[in-house]
Amino acid sequence: MAFDAKIIREEFPILDQEVEGGKLVYFDNAASAQKPLSVIEKEAQFYKKDFSNIHRSAHELSRRSTIAFEEARKYVLKHFNAPKNYTAVFTRGATEGLNIVARCFGEKFLSEGDEIILSEMEHHANIVPWQLCAMRTGAKIKVAKILPDGSLDIENLKSLVGARTKIISIAHASNVLGTINDVAEISRIAKKAGAVFCVDGAQSAPHFLDDISEIECDFFACSAHKCYGPTGEGALIAKTDILNEMDVWQGGGDMIENVSWEGTTFRNAPERFEAGTPNIAGAVAFAEALKFMDSLDKSAVRVYEDELLKRATDHLMKIEGVKILGTAPQKVPLISFVCGNIHHNDISTMLDANGIAVRSGHHCAEPLMNTLGIKGSCRASMAFYNTLEEVDYFAKKLSSIVKLFA
Amino acid sequence: MAFDAKIIREEFPILDQEVEGGKLVYFDNAASAQKPLSVIEKEAQFYKKDFSNIHRSAHELSRRSTIAFEEARKYVLKHFNAPKNYTAVFTRGATEGLNIVARCFGEKFLSEGDEIILSEMEHHANIVPWQLCAMRTGAKIKVAKILPDGSLDIENLKSLVGARTKIISIAHASNVLGTINDVAEISRIAKKAGAVFCVDGAQSAPHFLDDISEIECDFFACSAHKCYGPTGEGALIAKTDILNEMDVWQGGGDMIENVSWEGTTFRNAPERFEAGTPNIAGAVAFAEALKFMDSLDKSAVRVYEDELLKRATDHLMKIEGVKILGTAPQKVPLISFVCGNIHHNDISTMLDANGIAVRSGHHCAEPLMNTLGIKGSCRASMAFYNTLEEVDYFAKKLSSIVKLFA
Repeated sequence: MAFDAKIIREEFPILDQEVEGGKLVYFDNAASAQKPLSVIEKEAQFYKKDFSNIHRSAHELSRRSTIAFEEARKYVLKHFNAPKNYTAVFTRGATEGLNIVARCFGEKFLSEGDEIILSEMEHHANIVPWQLCAMRTGAKIKVAKILPDGSLDIENLKSLVGARTKIISIAHASNVLGTINDVAEISRIAKKAGAVFCVDGAQSAPHFLDDISEIECDFFACSAHKCYGPTGEGALIAKTDILNEMDVWQGGGDMIENVSWEGTTFRNAPERFEAGTPNIAGAVAFAEALKFMDSLDKSAVRVYEDELLKRATDHLMKIEGVKILGTAPQKVPLISFVCGNIHHNDISTMLDANGIAVRSGHHCAEPLMNTLGIKGSCRASMAFYNTLEEVDYFAKKLSSIVKLFA
Repeated sequence: MAFDAKIIREEFPILDQEVEGGKLVYFDNAASAQKPLSVIEKEAQFYKKDFSNIHRSAHELSRRSTIAFEEARKYVLKHFNAPKNYTAVFTRGATEGLNIVARCFGEKFLSEGDEIILSEMEHHANIVPWQLCAMRTGAKIKVAKILPDGSLDIENLKSLVGARTKIISIAHASNVLGTINDVAEISRIAKKAGAVFCVDGAQSAPHFLDDISEIECDFFACSAHKCYGPTGEGALIAKTDILNEMDVWQGGGDMIENVSWEGTTFRNAPERFEAGTPNIAGAVAFAEALKFMDSLDKSAVRVYEDELLKRATDHLMKIEGVKILGTAPQKVPLISFVCGNIHHNDISTMLDANGIAVRSGHHCAEPLMNTLGIKGSCRASMAFYNTLEEVDYFAKKLSSIVKLFA
């Protein structure tokens, strides 16, 4: 059965509104996705009926909340098809997950001269934590190149791997180019080199690229808010035995085994990395968002999102002066583009004046902007609730705007 | 006008329910407070109408969300009456705030032999981060003693201060003893010593002990979820110039000025400490919770909470075998207690069987448990929506339970 975006949109009341520029066309999904009613209602109902702090107690609301929180963790692991030797640490989002890996794994196990391999297409969240790690340990960062179509240059990546390679950390999908990287292949390269493999799943998880058993990574970080869930929540799904060997993250309640002035011992993962009261309602709502995703026909959604992408690509290729950044064969449904000498902010402002929400700027990927020789771009990023009509409208308006400047 | 808890309770639908043990009596507020409808609705409406990622863009929803987020920050500063030289960093909660101070201030400015002063009544969140800091820097922790009534021994604290004292970090109110510490006095001691002063405000902020201009601390950490706000949110209110000198916290988007493979520069506070997409909806709901608090008559609430505390204290003092832990003159409305040889978990389980939610255990304060010579205790912690009738019912049931074991 074909996927029907119009029916799905009923679950997303925010999409059905007029903004100053006209009917809203929300093409900023790679920055953050909207939330279905089921997620919003789940969180509200949780606070209205069952909420309390978790663990450490024996009263009914606390039991209900603890069960809801731990069931949420189980559901995250189930949704991402994580094998039994993985666990999920709840984080604020992908950024915190990557920081945990860089700090608690990197600073413990890397030393002077060890090597970290990243790629030219990484988001700042998968660059800066490693720069901090390198600064503190003396490790070096090597950067795998991209090909002209925005694909990762796998041969180049292979050539960077050596005896000192300790970690490879790569985006599953690029937030600028849209490129879906062959993470299973990179996993094999990492394994052969005896390096750990960390995946920034922020842009892949919203598009059902979420099978940990296929990815075979050691760490997978993602954000709930990009997966139709709440802000302030995310997961670092990782091999439990590696997590247990790592340095602790924040100190505080719940992550300890015993505390005394003489010395303190720590619990194993996942609690080891969850000091203090976690985002309990956020975890519950995150699981609800994943349940919503799982209620959809995954294959049909992917076919539909590809259709959105193809339609937008076809349109934009026909607009004179518009250049698409990233034309890899496998992409998530987003298009970054530049329009000759017209400033990306001017384009996005004029699209906004027509109700169309795109993002413009460096997309937290300044090194990639340098590689591409640009200061910034516009980005239209779609989700399954977007329609072909919206794509047509966007392309038509963009075409007019570009002509205005010509 | 006297404060009327019964009217306020209408804003908290969760309180009006039957649990297995009978009508719910929620006395676990020090672990987490319940949320008024205005907070729950604010978050839901924000997701239904205005949500988008913030900053870095120029479309209407992003503008609305950015304004809501930054207005929330302003409101936090206003609520806590923070002078102009302070800013508020949004955190996951008090625990993250204290970890930021210990890691980004402590590890940057402390070295071998420097001294950190804490107290015997601290929560693990204000102990473990400092232990980690001490381990990494060679600094030493000194522990100020408590007096028999659970007050901080200020003379003892003074005697610990010396030329190497770099930081004093103390709970504003104890989560076990209830003691409200004289933070203004400790601030003077810290200033005289040239040390920075950090306040764990997790237990004071919910009770309107929240005037930064009176406290005169350098850092004040609190949690939204204890202040009738959402989980996964909090604030570190601190002097901006000190924050700007500190090491960065997590690396990622929004906290950077410029990123390149050659080197990265960082923004000033508060963004410096807010890598990645923050808990946008959480910040908006946190501000709403503080607005709810500010809509109440602060003095009347404090008088009422003292009345709840006095009534509970009077009752418990009359129950043979019950010993109250902490009888300082100034307390937040919580009572920890032990009942002779009866295990605290047995007491809380039997209270739960009567619908009464208290917490039992070490309350994330194992060093204090050691000082008191106990393994754990029960804790009944109240908020302004609790009633004198609930206190009477609790005391009556506790009395029967203790008699059962006699």
